[in-house]
Amino acid sequence: MNKMLTDWVASMVNRLVESGVTDVVISPGSRSTPLAMAAYLHPQIRHHIIVDERSAAFYALGLTRSTDTIRPVALICTSGTAATNYYSAVTEAFISQLPLIVLTTDRPYELRNVGAPQAINQVRLYGEQVKMSLDLPVPEEATLSFMQQTVTRFTNLAMQAPIGPVHLNVPFREPLLPDLEQLKRLLKGEPTKPERQSIRPTSADRELFSERTNHKQLAFVVGPYTPVIWHDTIYEFAIERNIPIFADPLSGMRRFDGVLTNYDTWLASEYRTDWLPEVFIRFGAAPVSKRFNQWISTTEQLVIEEPGSYRDPSSRATICYGDALDFLPLIESINEPRYVERLRFFEDVAESAKPSLQGEAELTKRLLDTSIERLFVSNSMPIRDVDTSLSAGTAVQVLANRGANGIDGVLSSALGSCYDTSHAALLIGDLAFYHDSNALQLLKGHPGKFSVVISNNNGGGIFSFLPQASIDAQLFEDLFGTPLDLNIRGFAETYGLSYRLIERPDEIQKAIEDGIHLIEFPSNREQNVAIHREWTQSVCARLITENEA
Amino acid sequence: MNKMLTDWVASMVNRLVESGVTDVVISPGSRSTPLAMAAYLHPQIRHHIIVDERSAAFYALGLTRSTDTIRPVALICTSGTAATNYYSAVTEAFISQLPLIVLTTDRPYELRNVGAPQAINQVRLYGEQVKMSLDLPVPEEATLSFMQQTVTRFTNLAMQAPIGPVHLNVPFREPLLPDLEQLKRLLKGEPTKPERQSIRPTSADRELFSERTNHKQLAFVVGPYTPVIWHDTIYEFAIERNIPIFADPLSGMRRFDGVLTNYDTWLASEYRTDWLPEVFIRFGAAPVSKRFNQWISTTEQLVIEEPGSYRDPSSRATICYGDALDFLPLIESINEPRYVERLRFFEDVAESAKPSLQGEAELTKRLLDTSIERLFVSNSMPIRDVDTSLSAGTAVQVLANRGANGIDGVLSSALGSCYDTSHAALLIGDLAFYHDSNALQLLKGHPGKFSVVISNNNGGGIFSFLPQASIDAQLFEDLFGTPLDLNIRGFAETYGLSYRLIERPDEIQKAIEDGIHLIEFPSNREQNVAIHREWTQSVCARLITENEA
Repeated sequence: MNKMLTDWVASMVNRLVESGVTDVVISPGSRSTPLAMAAYLHPQIRHHIIVDERSAAFYALGLTRSTDTIRPVALICTSGTAATNYYSAVTEAFISQLPLIVLTTDRPYELRNVGAPQAINQVRLYGEQVKMSLDLPVPEEATLSFMQQTVTRFTNLAMQAPIGPVHLNVPFREPLLPDLEQLKRLLKGEPTKPERQSIRPTSADRELFSERTNHKQLAFVVGPYTPVIWHDTIYEFAIERNIPIFADPLSGMRRFDGVLTNYDTWLASEYRTDWLPEVFIRFGAAPVSKRFNQWISTTEQLVIEEPGSYRDPSSRATICYGDALDFLPLIESINEPRYVERLRFFEDVAESAKPSLQGEAELTKRLLDTSIERLFVSNSMPIRDVDTSLSAGTAVQVLANRGANGIDGVLSSALGSCYDTSHAALLIGDLAFYHDSNALQLLKGHPGKFSVVISNNNGGGIFSFLPQASIDAQLFEDLFGTPLDLNIRGFAETYGLSYRLIERPDEIQKAIEDGIHLIEFPSNREQNVAIHREWTQSVCARLITENEA
Repeated sequence: MNKMLTDWVASMVNRLVESGVTDVVISPGSRSTPLAMAAYLHPQIRHHIIVDERSAAFYALGLTRSTDTIRPVALICTSGTAATNYYSAVTEAFISQLPLIVLTTDRPYELRNVGAPQAINQVRLYGEQVKMSLDLPVPEEATLSFMQQTVTRFTNLAMQAPIGPVHLNVPFREPLLPDLEQLKRLLKGEPTKPERQSIRPTSADRELFSERTNHKQLAFVVGPYTPVIWHDTIYEFAIERNIPIFADPLSGMRRFDGVLTNYDTWLASEYRTDWLPEVFIRFGAAPVSKRFNQWISTTEQLVIEEPGSYRDPSSRATICYGDALDFLPLIESINEPRYVERLRFFEDVAESAKPSLQGEAELTKRLLDTSIERLFVSNSMPIRDVDTSLSAGTAVQVLANRGANGIDGVLSSALGSCYDTSHAALLIGDLAFYHDSNALQLLKGHPGKFSVVISNNNGGGIFSFLPQASIDAQLFEDLFGTPLDLNIRGFAETYGLSYRLIERPDEIQKAIEDGIHLIEFPSNREQNVAIHREWTQSVCARLITENEA
């Protein structure tokens, strides 16, 4: 009874497992039946069933970083527009370099492009947004070993530098029911634990790096999601050589004391340019702070990159391909202490202004000081608030989708990436919350304690910071403010979740401890702009006073 | 002040209007500012602001058929994954042949593929799912007339056979604020009313058609969305020649008395094959009924198609390119009355069984008999229920997304396509309702009376009709049933909508008349399968009895 189909999907899933896939996110459908059943029944796979494929894909994206090691995660959906709903997360995975293994099931050749139901052209469906895409043959003996090798090859490819999504289109002909008993017998294999593959730099890259860095005043920039195994080495090396570290909130480096975290604020001061390193050495992607990126864009930059990756919005940096641990020993420079001291002065002035934060900024600061292990942060305002609020020496792990910086799929990504964390939270605005509200369906079944903290300013807060805000009020409100008048409590009731409205930022700690699902904090767009400007001005004023003192 | 940018976006939007665009769906963002402002301010454009781009695109898709004439509708979004959220609706538009003009704004060349924020590779973003895609230059004098011609050309292209979506990627460099006063002065032009362009068949196609159809027992098949201007002619011609018409629920032809509508039911009878036409002439896409398509797949079929279109899942039909009104006069055959009478006997037996319908099937029948002008129907079970319930001579216009047959974007599509209808409804299951629940945000502001009728069977009802249903219960429920335990009343409260739970199908008329936003009808998956099987069996039994009588 359908032996070929059974063998085919069993060995496909066995190959995924052998290549390190432990989590599969499945969206229900008919065409995907044999593959979904195999993934569901494999004893070594954790399956996650998610109806909305857009949400499913972002959830899978999150799962790739639910532990300290990036892991490949597979997605399975039926044919048709189900697969197109993956597009946003696939694109985010491509830019964020995350290993999604996208398995779109399909109708067989003879039912494609002929007006058959639920058949779209799925070949190369994700265009330039995947590392590689292949249209598999329908199950048959002649191509069984080709399919097996392809699955292994694609999963490996996803994990090779630069990490990224791959796509296999998987056609099945009816009947779609495998032999379940036989399938259970065939499913086996232990998942390999993925190891980071680091690339040995060429001697030319080493020489170039050595030449450009030596006898210079250096600074390190650690961008989002640098490999964890680099952190200690970078930190210790920097301390020893008096090299300042500009640590992005997503770098994982702000847990160290003494790294620089307040640059986005003090760069607003007119004194910002009186100390500038001669060379910036950047690890990882460009930081979140726009002011910082503008500040360093005309200075010499060396960027340590993975082969195939290129992230230099300034179009002026020198890219060195390889592993930071191989490049660091080539640095001979030792900075003079006064450079570091000068930066510390700016830092301390900005840091000392933090207790006077109010509104969203205060909420963010207080949230970062709770006992959660992970905080997922939405794009737009929350990530900027976290950038200015997250002080050096704070233990919480901060995550965000900083590839394409979208406000889509944020709750799904957060739930996926906190699947293996016992206590976590998401900080999100009302627009992004609404955009991914389907993911509320997943919140009740989340294995850990998880709170969604909604800073509700009834619309798009970030636009109030842009020049657009100065125009005609009605046009601005219609096109940019876009108030949705969301009833957050209503969402809680609809999805059977606990809810708490907090009027004051200092109520956040208790709500987080109580594990409330949805915590709403009413904020105000104009007030937030005012608070941010006021705070920056107060830091600038102190810099003037204390600088002159 | 930004004169070039102002001129650029003004003439871009003027060109859209001159080419027939009257509706623009805008999702908020920063990069899209100049284009969004121009579309918002143009006096001849109706703008629709929708935050979730997936919903926005399906809404625009619906708007293309909000009147009896297909109209081009433009979409505007910001850069990044915003644009990827359009993918599902773009794909549906491509297969359903609907003219979406997709305008994705983008960062300029120097910020692409270099790790800049909110920058993804948007060039040819929709791959094979659009008719054409072009990456425009940034605004500058040298390319102004090229841009103008491109906008006209692309909008025209979208409307030429086969109609379909086109994509323009529109990069802007900062600053993004146009001169608003100047912009208002420049915006002008009257929309042209799009006219259907029909294609003259070649003499070879006419000869072939004539040869294959004459002196044969003929039947007409009218599929989804055939041009309205064909209907009267096809109907009158068929009556005159005794040609039976198999009318799909989406053909618009079921408003005529005497067309065949119950074939999906009586084809379940063993007597179904005792009368088979020699040649089927199909207008439009293949019908919804799987049984019907299987039945005719080995018989000779002639399909009248638009150039460039090909819809023949049987891979056996003869395709004739051109306009039905040119082909009809070539038919000389007159069928013998007994053929039509034989089919009418089957029809009448099935029709007479309808009053005994129960559950979802009864709900559907009663909904079709209310005074609504349009009914949008979700995929999966609802469209099948409508196919079996919609009798000949029923005035209501039925619409559905029958390109890729997805359960995504259904509510958005329904609201868009009923934007110009004063009283309309949507029939939808709970899974599809959940999938597009973000569109509930748009329901309160809908200009006409609109009810969403949710047949809530707590999961995917259609799977219970498949062989999968016979397997292990837990596996089936997890992978296919996927109960969400939705609180529909909660959604109503969250979005400030009226709600009514109806326990009996005969309560539907009153709820529709009262214009209730969300009408929930609890149904049961297993019971629905039983009702459908029972009904089909009763029709078959009557056919046997009355056939032998």
